[in-house]
Amino acid sequence: MLFETAEIERRIEGFRRLLKDESVPCEVTVIHHLADVFYFSGTIQDGFIIIGSEGDPLFALKRNVDRAKKETPLKSVEPLRRSGDLRDFLLRACGQPPRSVGMALDVMSVLEYEKIRRLLKGAEIVDVSSCIRKVRSKKSGEELELMRGAARIGHWVYEKAREIIAPGMDEWQLSATLEYEARLKGNLGIIRVRNRRLEMYFGHILSGGEASLPSYGDFPTGGAGVSPAFSQGSTSRKIGSNEVVSIDTMINNHGYLNDQTRNFSLGKPPDILRRAFDLSLELHELFRRKALPGTTGGGLYDEIMKRVSATDLAPYFMGYGQNRVVFIGHGIGIEVDEVPFIARNQKTVIEAGMTVAFEPKFVVPGVGVVGIENTYLINDHGAVSMNISPEELVVL
Amino acid sequence: MLFETAEIERRIEGFRRLLKDESVPCEVTVIHHLADVFYFSGTIQDGFIIIGSEGDPLFALKRNVDRAKKETPLKSVEPLRRSGDLRDFLLRACGQPPRSVGMALDVMSVLEYEKIRRLLKGAEIVDVSSCIRKVRSKKSGEELELMRGAARIGHWVYEKAREIIAPGMDEWQLSATLEYEARLKGNLGIIRVRNRRLEMYFGHILSGGEASLPSYGDFPTGGAGVSPAFSQGSTSRKIGSNEVVSIDTMINNHGYLNDQTRNFSLGKPPDILRRAFDLSLELHELFRRKALPGTTGGGLYDEIMKRVSATDLAPYFMGYGQNRVVFIGHGIGIEVDEVPFIARNQKTVIEAGMTVAFEPKFVVPGVGVVGIENTYLINDHGAVSMNISPEELVVL
Repeated sequence: MLFETAEIERRIEGFRRLLKDESVPCEVTVIHHLADVFYFSGTIQDGFIIIGSEGDPLFALKRNVDRAKKETPLKSVEPLRRSGDLRDFLLRACGQPPRSVGMALDVMSVLEYEKIRRLLKGAEIVDVSSCIRKVRSKKSGEELELMRGAARIGHWVYEKAREIIAPGMDEWQLSATLEYEARLKGNLGIIRVRNRRLEMYFGHILSGGEASLPSYGDFPTGGAGVSPAFSQGSTSRKIGSNEVVSIDTMINNHGYLNDQTRNFSLGKPPDILRRAFDLSLELHELFRRKALPGTTGGGLYDEIMKRVSATDLAPYFMGYGQNRVVFIGHGIGIEVDEVPFIARNQKTVIEAGMTVAFEPKFVVPGVGVVGIENTYLINDHGAVSMNISPEELVVL
Repeated sequence: MLFETAEIERRIEGFRRLLKDESVPCEVTVIHHLADVFYFSGTIQDGFIIIGSEGDPLFALKRNVDRAKKETPLKSVEPLRRSGDLRDFLLRACGQPPRSVGMALDVMSVLEYEKIRRLLKGAEIVDVSSCIRKVRSKKSGEELELMRGAARIGHWVYEKAREIIAPGMDEWQLSATLEYEARLKGNLGIIRVRNRRLEMYFGHILSGGEASLPSYGDFPTGGAGVSPAFSQGSTSRKIGSNEVVSIDTMINNHGYLNDQTRNFSLGKPPDILRRAFDLSLELHELFRRKALPGTTGGGLYDEIMKRVSATDLAPYFMGYGQNRVVFIGHGIGIEVDEVPFIARNQKTVIEAGMTVAFEPKFVVPGVGVVGIENTYLINDHGAVSMNISPEELVVL
């Protein structure tokens, strides 16, 4: 099993406490989103976890019950033969038909919702996604260990990049090779996102001036990609001298992600990118000190923006012109878009135990992209990087 | 551009005709799901396509307008600066605030829906997902060409598998190598699904008795995988002699998918799997003849099941015991779970131009999985495979 009984119990208790603290009016919660099921059970087997206000949760599975029994410390694991049986499980959990049921409405489609409503005849369905996201945002020691494992795979990829980047190699070939290396080290490959509009595959391996092309994704870097069907990331462009290569990778180790960006150049990089790189490092230093429990995502965003605004590099920060994104960091764990967001107006309060990918990047049109990204753990004294790759701009 | 003006116009006219034929009560449709945006525009840039009952659609983009202008033949391409501006675009499309707006509610979350409802103040939101899915189910010559390109990449992977499978090689290494080869040939990697509960990465490369382990996915084959966090697909198991290796790959060529399964064995395969393989081929033959326009997905399912039921292999078809899935084929194109489904009780009428991955497979507990899968085009005389790899059980 990936997680022990006590660990899973703590997660469930943490969630119950949040529901209580925030006076969420629901008698029982049904966890249905796969990433949430994984969090509360330790297995991605497909089913519903029914969490009442006390007692053991019931894990009712569509498939596969036998595997779930082996993979989860939850005690009550049973088959869900027909969707209609969900009603009986809720009856068992509550002693009577519940009047209010919590579900994650940020990830439930309208058609699914209508089906569930008919099934639950008159019970009110209450959105509990903010409590789920909040309890998930603070990682346990066990979760951090898996995230550190992901960082180690990311470091392996970094070492390989350092070894193989050479003049005339094309980005696409470089990306394919790094993907292969990551897979050999156990990268699960799949990148779970909560927001369906975020599409990702492995990362962004970008070089030179073309790297500055913005994409359809809510990312600071884009890249042309090789098709209008997935227009982001690498192309068959040859890597040249005196330009920056940005290696942004997303690794999945047993369900937990690591996001890392490192920069290389063949020969001296363009001056403006070197200066921007140095500023990126300085912003990391600032983040490490300022990301203290009690600050907010918006407060941190403002703090960083203030520093950048005092420089002539401000126009290039986090994208150029209309294409600037309004965040500099995002929570990360099982999904890539967890809370908190280090973003404009974000009220989320930073707490010890949260994990954030912080990515101050600069996009200089026609010249390139540059900037370091680390996955950080927040503790009582600031942020500590879980990434172990050196942060220098590697000149090859 | 991936598609010409006339092609995109035909798609939009096809959709309008369906709305009319099915008397869907909506004045205007807002296309928002990325895969649908790609279908109606030829680009995956992120925005809303507003399709009124006549005239040019309006493409209002969050990001990136400049790229969209280069990538789509749609004439009206404009920035959407704030979500609230969607209301103005609808006003322009309809001449007055619309009373009813069509959207794809199978892929819109409840929270997004509530936001849109507030925005559209009193307009009724009507689900048009079935018309979108229906128009997308029949492929044009241009779409088929891209799907054939995906089949060619799948064939390349097959050739590589044939070349490299050797005793003692582990599944995981084999999968990583085939992924790498597919990427070098242009596989976009990303696998778009409509149903969020389907998680996929590259495919299922499985061997021997362990291949028969069912997974959490609604697939006939599962596999153990290497983690409870993504428990499907390959493990580090060494491929042995006299067992079947199943190479099930999903390739994305410019947004269009190919699904293929081929089987190998090192030395003589187990008798029961050889017999099941032969039956799988026979079921393909049956499908090719019987998948005629006018039949239904459910009718075809019954026809195939009837043939299988007459054999002693019936208990192993499409999974074993409780783990049997109730489909044998699925529509495929931009997404892996398109209509029609060749599945129990499916009323969808098969039409010429539809594309279906047909995968009659057998899962024999402790012995292995076997079965061929092709991506078929339905024409007036039956189904024609787009896959070009030989269908034999390759004995190495």
